[in-house]
Amino acid sequence: MSIDREKLRWNGWGWVDAPDVLGDKAVGVWKWMGEVLNLGPLPSTPARALSEIALPAPRLPGSAMDKLGRLLAPGRVKTDDFERAFHARGKSYHDLLHLRAGRVDTAPDAVVYPISTEETVALVQYAAEANIAVIPYGGGSSVVGGVTAVAGEGQAGAITLDMTLMDQVLAIDEQALIARAQGGVYGPQLEDALQARGYTLGHYPQSFEFSTLGGWIAPRSAGHQSNKYGKAEDWLVAATLATPEGVWTTEGFPASAAGPQMRDIVAGSEGVLGVITEAEFKIQRAPEVLDYRAYVFPEFEAAVAAFRDMMQQDVPTAMIRLSDKPETFFLNAVDTGDAQGAGPAQFCLMLVGLEGDRATVDYGLERSRAIIKNHGGIHMGEGPGQSWYKGRFETPYLRDPMMDRGLGVDTLETATRWSSVLPLHGAVTEAIAGALEANAPAAAHGGIVMAHLSHAYRDGASLYFIIAFPRDLEREVDQWWAVKRAASDAIVAHGGTISHHHGVGEDHLEWVGKEKGATTLEALKALKARLDPAGVLNPGKLLW
Amino acid sequence: MSIDREKLRWNGWGWVDAPDVLGDKAVGVWKWMGEVLNLGPLPSTPARALSEIALPAPRLPGSAMDKLGRLLAPGRVKTDDFERAFHARGKSYHDLLHLRAGRVDTAPDAVVYPISTEETVALVQYAAEANIAVIPYGGGSSVVGGVTAVAGEGQAGAITLDMTLMDQVLAIDEQALIARAQGGVYGPQLEDALQARGYTLGHYPQSFEFSTLGGWIAPRSAGHQSNKYGKAEDWLVAATLATPEGVWTTEGFPASAAGPQMRDIVAGSEGVLGVITEAEFKIQRAPEVLDYRAYVFPEFEAAVAAFRDMMQQDVPTAMIRLSDKPETFFLNAVDTGDAQGAGPAQFCLMLVGLEGDRATVDYGLERSRAIIKNHGGIHMGEGPGQSWYKGRFETPYLRDPMMDRGLGVDTLETATRWSSVLPLHGAVTEAIAGALEANAPAAAHGGIVMAHLSHAYRDGASLYFIIAFPRDLEREVDQWWAVKRAASDAIVAHGGTISHHHGVGEDHLEWVGKEKGATTLEALKALKARLDPAGVLNPGKLLW
Repeated sequence: MSIDREKLRWNGWGWVDAPDVLGDKAVGVWKWMGEVLNLGPLPSTPARALSEIALPAPRLPGSAMDKLGRLLAPGRVKTDDFERAFHARGKSYHDLLHLRAGRVDTAPDAVVYPISTEETVALVQYAAEANIAVIPYGGGSSVVGGVTAVAGEGQAGAITLDMTLMDQVLAIDEQALIARAQGGVYGPQLEDALQARGYTLGHYPQSFEFSTLGGWIAPRSAGHQSNKYGKAEDWLVAATLATPEGVWTTEGFPASAAGPQMRDIVAGSEGVLGVITEAEFKIQRAPEVLDYRAYVFPEFEAAVAAFRDMMQQDVPTAMIRLSDKPETFFLNAVDTGDAQGAGPAQFCLMLVGLEGDRATVDYGLERSRAIIKNHGGIHMGEGPGQSWYKGRFETPYLRDPMMDRGLGVDTLETATRWSSVLPLHGAVTEAIAGALEANAPAAAHGGIVMAHLSHAYRDGASLYFIIAFPRDLEREVDQWWAVKRAASDAIVAHGGTISHHHGVGEDHLEWVGKEKGATTLEALKALKARLDPAGVLNPGKLLW
Repeated sequence: MSIDREKLRWNGWGWVDAPDVLGDKAVGVWKWMGEVLNLGPLPSTPARALSEIALPAPRLPGSAMDKLGRLLAPGRVKTDDFERAFHARGKSYHDLLHLRAGRVDTAPDAVVYPISTEETVALVQYAAEANIAVIPYGGGSSVVGGVTAVAGEGQAGAITLDMTLMDQVLAIDEQALIARAQGGVYGPQLEDALQARGYTLGHYPQSFEFSTLGGWIAPRSAGHQSNKYGKAEDWLVAATLATPEGVWTTEGFPASAAGPQMRDIVAGSEGVLGVITEAEFKIQRAPEVLDYRAYVFPEFEAAVAAFRDMMQQDVPTAMIRLSDKPETFFLNAVDTGDAQGAGPAQFCLMLVGLEGDRATVDYGLERSRAIIKNHGGIHMGEGPGQSWYKGRFETPYLRDPMMDRGLGVDTLETATRWSSVLPLHGAVTEAIAGALEANAPAAAHGGIVMAHLSHAYRDGASLYFIIAFPRDLEREVDQWWAVKRAASDAIVAHGGTISHHHGVGEDHLEWVGKEKGATTLEALKALKARLDPAGVLNPGKLLW
């Protein structure tokens, strides 16, 4: 395993010993947040220690444990409290509400670490035979309940398959620019191996350091630079899965007219069709040049139009990220530690990232600057872009200290057509603000709602909402669900998908049915029933 | 219906009254071909007239015909010989062997022309209830047996659903650049409607004039300019299908992580999951500039490397088409009507097409010329490119006069990774040449095998083979199968897909199983069984 589990927070983000992400701005930021949310000094709401928490009793009989012990080498079947708690849930705000409060109401009976496709097949086949739920687990960074260790109704128990011992980069085809690796490889290890040869996958989600190749494919993950490198469903060439029916390898052609291609089904399958043990994926030459710079617009509408023009006019960008006024304000306030200094929300920040060879970047720069200028955007230079780039994996570390101080923080995202971007942005912002207000603890403000556009296409773009709010400590889960429900209903009502890159998991089940319709759901269930007749693969996610 | 059926050849390509595609070069070309194939003067092998041919007796009982008559308005249920023969098969060489010889061994019992999704659903539901095969039919230009009017075992008969009355462009979203149209609209009518508003789908397969939107989606069709506009699976946003379970509309987001997206399944479904009645698809602004020009390379290998570099270095091309030496020779010989004048096969022709706004085309031109020069390619100017562009839909007209003269001609195509392009090109060429030789009629040469690369990607490219050969009139179908089998075996053995853009149909069934593997086939069959429990949709294609 490339990361020692003990060094990671079981009930929070990242490294146990990570420094305070706010550094010397902390005092100012907490003061400012308390004032903005009308809380005054923020309360202290620390998480409970694992040693104080009782985990649910394991359910698997001794015979099952014996069998697991025979299927894997000693030391690769774990049942201690830390392993069980670590693998109980993912890393959503909702998950952390439960874990931090000590409500570990569900946990795997055992955590097993397979080292080969064959071993994974044997595990899955045994689980199907013994009616034990199997939860595939990579980095565990799901924010939609994608790895919750639940057993289905009538199942004998649940084992989590931690895939991170399968971390090898197996081959690089330098002509086709295709690499093959095991599914459990973490982002940094994968990129190190590729970049040592001059290549990159270019997939940098915010979870990059703590998520895996297989974990990116399963929920159709997107990296920051998806404009250039594509989402998981774009760069996936072929996948190998362990299923109860045996090893399943999908087709792997550059393109094919020989019927539907199963990689399109595996991307987004969230562990319910099989466990991704290996994948082939498109790589690119590591970029010669990175150019990240900022622009500001006086109005969001004009900035959206500029964004759309860049996407529709073949401008080769790696990333465009457009913050609305509240997010621009919030980023400044956190950056300066001072809401006064951040100034009122009077403009929108757009970051444009270009990557590639010199000629491509020069061309992209020339065209993007012309389009942005044409829509009234003002060039702010490379400083803010480079600053974003440097800190791009740090933001998730802000959540734990916020949760320690009585605050809630969540993110949710969607994608919609350009013609719906502005109406959806307005409606979802309003729906969330209304729900926050209606569910705020006494005297406090509802909270802050902000959004950015990123991951864009010719026909539309992703919108990513971030909310920060005073937690109602008496009913923190209900409060979250009320906000989540309001946001999700508004997304679906305004032509958005319930998720652009987080996935469905448990949290989006209710809306995925509306989005896909009965026929599609039934078709997918039929497909699952054929591949997983016993229904042991990741119960309660995606299709249930 | 936008094309009067009576004006089309029922047993050949295109318009009945199309002029001789060879014009005044005809005498020279036929003389040259006779010599090259060692036949001397070419024989006369005209097709049989429909009036001399007995069609199979209709099988449907009067009650079924009565029901069809009630489901559709009068005049939209046709049973005359011309309609039945016209819809008996597609337009492959194999199809024409049967049709021209008068072996119309299978034909629909009735041809029905629905005008709405609801009517199509009613027809499909009735067919499922009455156990009648349903063959969806657009332009009927399939070259893989995709529309052969066969009933499955035990089925009461077969009706063909000719979709061409459903030919309306319904909406254009100018912000999202998405249009919606009915599935039966022919290429020219669709482009006329889009271009009148300043847009294009840009999908120009060789069959463009005689194929439909739904017919492009069903087998994952590719247009010549797929580098810019994408294949059907790339530009399809959402589809509406008539199924025995009712109307089925797929998700239609720019991108989504809410599980697999059913448009990826509908593209390539070849009518076995439902009948495509409407689709939303990505459009682009009609290009300001078209720049088509030619380059020549002394060696195929260097040209392939240049092609690959353009694809992997973000050069915005609309089309790159690289002929191998035999194809370059053949094109010249047909163009000049003289094999002498065409010179020996000593170079490879590459056409590069650029489309878009001025800035994109200028940039693409600069970069493509630099890469081509770097690999030893020589610029030949715009003449050959423009000449190809002007005649790009005419080549299929060459087949009928060749078949009238004892010749066979077929095309087949695949796609593979760049690392396999040269080995596959060599192996398939050799396999075809060997099979042609082994199956040649006495004294004649085996035939001519040529190929080009087109429709390329970062990770690989499509290879398109064309063969011309003396027909063995005693065993013309067996001769074709021997060659087809040799080619297909070689494709699969060298990492190619059995089809990049023609589809599976009946002809590729044997190889699609090897390519996809048992698990994938079983999964797709389970999906079909859920959507078409009675198994009436396009029997014998894709999954049987």
